[in-house]
Amino acid sequence: MYRSHTCGELTLANIQQEVTLSGWVQTIRKFGSITFVDLRDRYGLTQLLFGEALNEQLDQTPLGREFVLQVKGKVAERSNKNKQIPTGEIEILVESFTVLNKSAVPPFTIQDDTDGGEDLRMKYRYLDLRRNAVKKNLQLRYQVSRSVRNYLHDQGFMDIETPFLIKSTPEGARDFIVPSRMNEGEFYALPQSPQTFKQLLMISGYDRYYQIVKCFRDEDLRADRQPEFTQIDCEMAFVEQEDVLQMFEGLIRKVFEDVLAKQYTEEIIRLSWEEAMWRYGNDKPDIRFGMELANLKFPAHTFPTKPAVEGIFEGVDFKVFNEAETVVAIAVPGGAEYTRKELDELTAWVKRPQIGMMGLVYIKCQSDGTYKSSVDKFYDSDRLSIIAGKAGAVAGDLVLILAGKEERTRKAISELRLEMGKRLGLRRADQYKLLWVLDFPLFEYAPEENRWVAKHHPFTSPKPSDIERMIGNDPKISDPEKYLEHPYANIKANAYDMVLNGNEIGGGSIRIFQKELQEKMFAALGMDEKEQQEKFGFLLGAFQYGAPPHGGLAFGFDRLCALLGGSESIRDFIAFPKNNSGRDVMIDAPSGVDQKQLDELALKLAPGKP
Amino acid sequence: MYRSHTCGELTLANIQQEVTLSGWVQTIRKFGSITFVDLRDRYGLTQLLFGEALNEQLDQTPLGREFVLQVKGKVAERSNKNKQIPTGEIEILVESFTVLNKSAVPPFTIQDDTDGGEDLRMKYRYLDLRRNAVKKNLQLRYQVSRSVRNYLHDQGFMDIETPFLIKSTPEGARDFIVPSRMNEGEFYALPQSPQTFKQLLMISGYDRYYQIVKCFRDEDLRADRQPEFTQIDCEMAFVEQEDVLQMFEGLIRKVFEDVLAKQYTEEIIRLSWEEAMWRYGNDKPDIRFGMELANLKFPAHTFPTKPAVEGIFEGVDFKVFNEAETVVAIAVPGGAEYTRKELDELTAWVKRPQIGMMGLVYIKCQSDGTYKSSVDKFYDSDRLSIIAGKAGAVAGDLVLILAGKEERTRKAISELRLEMGKRLGLRRADQYKLLWVLDFPLFEYAPEENRWVAKHHPFTSPKPSDIERMIGNDPKISDPEKYLEHPYANIKANAYDMVLNGNEIGGGSIRIFQKELQEKMFAALGMDEKEQQEKFGFLLGAFQYGAPPHGGLAFGFDRLCALLGGSESIRDFIAFPKNNSGRDVMIDAPSGVDQKQLDELALKLAPGKP
Repeated sequence: MYRSHTCGELTLANIQQEVTLSGWVQTIRKFGSITFVDLRDRYGLTQLLFGEALNEQLDQTPLGREFVLQVKGKVAERSNKNKQIPTGEIEILVESFTVLNKSAVPPFTIQDDTDGGEDLRMKYRYLDLRRNAVKKNLQLRYQVSRSVRNYLHDQGFMDIETPFLIKSTPEGARDFIVPSRMNEGEFYALPQSPQTFKQLLMISGYDRYYQIVKCFRDEDLRADRQPEFTQIDCEMAFVEQEDVLQMFEGLIRKVFEDVLAKQYTEEIIRLSWEEAMWRYGNDKPDIRFGMELANLKFPAHTFPTKPAVEGIFEGVDFKVFNEAETVVAIAVPGGAEYTRKELDELTAWVKRPQIGMMGLVYIKCQSDGTYKSSVDKFYDSDRLSIIAGKAGAVAGDLVLILAGKEERTRKAISELRLEMGKRLGLRRADQYKLLWVLDFPLFEYAPEENRWVAKHHPFTSPKPSDIERMIGNDPKISDPEKYLEHPYANIKANAYDMVLNGNEIGGGSIRIFQKELQEKMFAALGMDEKEQQEKFGFLLGAFQYGAPPHGGLAFGFDRLCALLGGSESIRDFIAFPKNNSGRDVMIDAPSGVDQKQLDELALKLAPGKP
Repeated sequence: MYRSHTCGELTLANIQQEVTLSGWVQTIRKFGSITFVDLRDRYGLTQLLFGEALNEQLDQTPLGREFVLQVKGKVAERSNKNKQIPTGEIEILVESFTVLNKSAVPPFTIQDDTDGGEDLRMKYRYLDLRRNAVKKNLQLRYQVSRSVRNYLHDQGFMDIETPFLIKSTPEGARDFIVPSRMNEGEFYALPQSPQTFKQLLMISGYDRYYQIVKCFRDEDLRADRQPEFTQIDCEMAFVEQEDVLQMFEGLIRKVFEDVLAKQYTEEIIRLSWEEAMWRYGNDKPDIRFGMELANLKFPAHTFPTKPAVEGIFEGVDFKVFNEAETVVAIAVPGGAEYTRKELDELTAWVKRPQIGMMGLVYIKCQSDGTYKSSVDKFYDSDRLSIIAGKAGAVAGDLVLILAGKEERTRKAISELRLEMGKRLGLRRADQYKLLWVLDFPLFEYAPEENRWVAKHHPFTSPKPSDIERMIGNDPKISDPEKYLEHPYANIKANAYDMVLNGNEIGGGSIRIFQKELQEKMFAALGMDEKEQQEKFGFLLGAFQYGAPPHGGLAFGFDRLCALLGGSESIRDFIAFPKNNSGRDVMIDAPSGVDQKQLDELALKLAPGKP
């Protein structure tokens, strides 16, 4: 028996007990003839006291950091108590010890505040995983999965495994493919999600399905993406959108309670996609703070339900606003104090290529009721007052205005809003604000190919009121310039995203469950009948044999854990993550393989392509 | 709202309630102007009664099997009660109905006793999954995973995900490989198991890890193997073999209780590998029945602890026995009644190529105390009596004797024992017998390469008492004829298998945790230092920084579920299995991919190789 207790459980209640502990040497301190060692394991730290009698053995087998040690001894009360940790009132008077394994000096210190850089810590991930900060993340991840499983179990969901070796159906992201040896020249693909399988399970009558499952996408990796990632994948039959929303509101509230010991009692507000774009310029708005957009000018087709803002810029010869498709503003609370230098820096910030604006217009609403603005030679005080009023600014605030093409400008003002929120400390990691974004467009326009692509995925159903418009019209876009006037441009989807603190944590939809509508959808995305059959013949076939109405949702598990852990980096919440080139630098993968392996797969390397 | 209740929950307690149900049409029966429909969902069947008033609508939209139907109506007591099902005392007086989706006539009937052949059911797996028999299997599978997760959670295990895109380290089975686009000419491999990662987690201090996880092996598929399969993968630090055995005895008892509602209170016996081979000829013996082997002659080196059987065949000129390496017998209870024809059939059975024996010797122990034998012209009654006695035969039994080379003969007698057990009805699917097999050999001899291979895997530790023998000797086998005399031949491993009804359901070992011993192990398997570094440098590196003693076990989840479900076929317990060629015939995978995909991966097909 290697241990009678862990390093996290002994307290004054155990005084005088003979115990055996095993763990890692965290620190060694010598005071005269006495040696103190902090022994660490997953559960905590316990102080060991090596008295004079052990000095001979300690001289022969000196201890070092990260040595694996087994000690036997008696629990004693400590004179110098540490109230910070549960075991801080006791120590072990060591009677005998065994070095179970030695350790070389680690390449960085195993402490919360480590001296190891990211690269070093990735290479020695097994040592990085020893640090408390990382351990806490993985523990939180396990808590989340446990909480999710318990909730879904109580709601009657069944965990059903779907296959990993499936078929390549390129649409959307790139598949990872797996050559088959038994079927020469053919390939499996790794799933980007179990989408079609979970739909088949609904057709099979399984009703409430879930899985916490790895998915794969061979995409160029942005800082916070991984080629393999984990989804909480759920699907329900005989449901409408409202049923799904309520089910997963329940789930997220349960997770908050179980994992953060925090009730999320607030109503989870719902915004239509149009409303989110209108108020925040973003379909995953961070609503921990206000600073909502003032839409001073915008193209009518973008927000068909919103009345145009009349007359603000009329009769003034300021070309930037007059010629812009969109003019949009935010009010920064207390920003009237900004110096010239600070405003210049903000201007430079919006001109960076990532944001891509030509400039920034500001209006300072000064405490004396006057205005100071970069455009005060064009607009008089009354006009500036109207603009500031639209943005909801009061005395002491700063109004920031961007102008340009709709899409870019809206994206830029959204980024600017987030940046100002951050600078003002309004985006606190310990505050959580959830919302639903609903009624997404079903289609997006792909200008390179002059065709429609699915905004969510090809299995998402249109709103019932829009089905006729879809069925009754040809998807072909005869005039690319006027794609917005095509009847498909305004078809709304039965799709929904759950957003937490400005991040999409989950998304889903009510699915198409009728063969004809699915065929129409595939056709709208440019698939002819042959391609439909090749790629999705099994699904179209299944729709013929009694497919029930169904819908579902998938949470990005890595992201959800990161946000609950107060971080925006998913990598910190994955035991063995890959770097930005998709490499696992610890095991050195991917790597070359034997020629024999390639021969068996009937494959040849074709370097230099494409 | 699609339903107020499921099709499995309404009883007499709900009489007079207005309800809404949704489900599939199982059967339609007409009696005059009344139509009865059984509506099915995941939860059960409910009888619907369509009265005369609905006939016009029924004429316009006639129902068919597997149509998806929504009905509103009132719960009423049934006159013709069905006590077999929970809802059998009520029916729904339908007031209105909607056909949610139609169904074509299914290619086979959705019933327990289906008329669909295996191929058809694989192609239409989504329909096969509707059958009760298959649904029960998947429900059992979910119950097992739930039970396992709960037990391991209570024992302090953490579910930690390990990566799927790892490094190819061919040793043992073939890897599936995944070409990397971002790292041209390089490949990931899909894990055959998370072995090295779970060991790293132990080195990282996670102490008790588990995962229910997909694993992959690109092997030629026997009838009951799948290219992707699921393991319950567990690892513990600071444990000895006894700790692991007790932990997982606890787990399996919990699973029996939760899933079969059956206490497994018996002691789980432990047999050494040698004892299992001696008594049953098999390292995964079915101990639901006796019929243990009588070892009449065997090579001394195979069972070093067993004394030779003296003098049985001495002085008799029966070459078959005298020249055989091994002679081994079993006693078949009540078999003395076997006819000539039956014995001929048994002889033919052992001569089949799968068994490969030259013949079968029998001794009938007749009720009058005399013997009748195929070798009674060589052996007199006294001799026959001694042989029968060794086999434990009594009057009325039949002794069956095989002779030949040790390995083949032992395998054959083991098969014969299982076959006779089956014929005698001694292998009942509803009876469960567990045991541990311990002390496996660390190495197996690979004659083709004249080297040692790992019996379990290269991370399994030798028994502490055998470490010296391993470290102190060169693995090279100078004389292939005498490999059994090599000091490595008798090194025992700290490895263990859990066996249920003649099937290995789990296996594991205490691992090597010292760098030097691991290097010696790799060297013994023929890896030079360069290869060791390339393939396992990260693990050898990790061993330098304080690796704790650790060990673990993995259960074959598919097999475990199948056995608990009373079946030997894992395919019935997998939602979307592949066929014997590794194909998913439903989705038609694997399949060809676009040239563009290959170009992006810098790959070319090289047909006809190897």
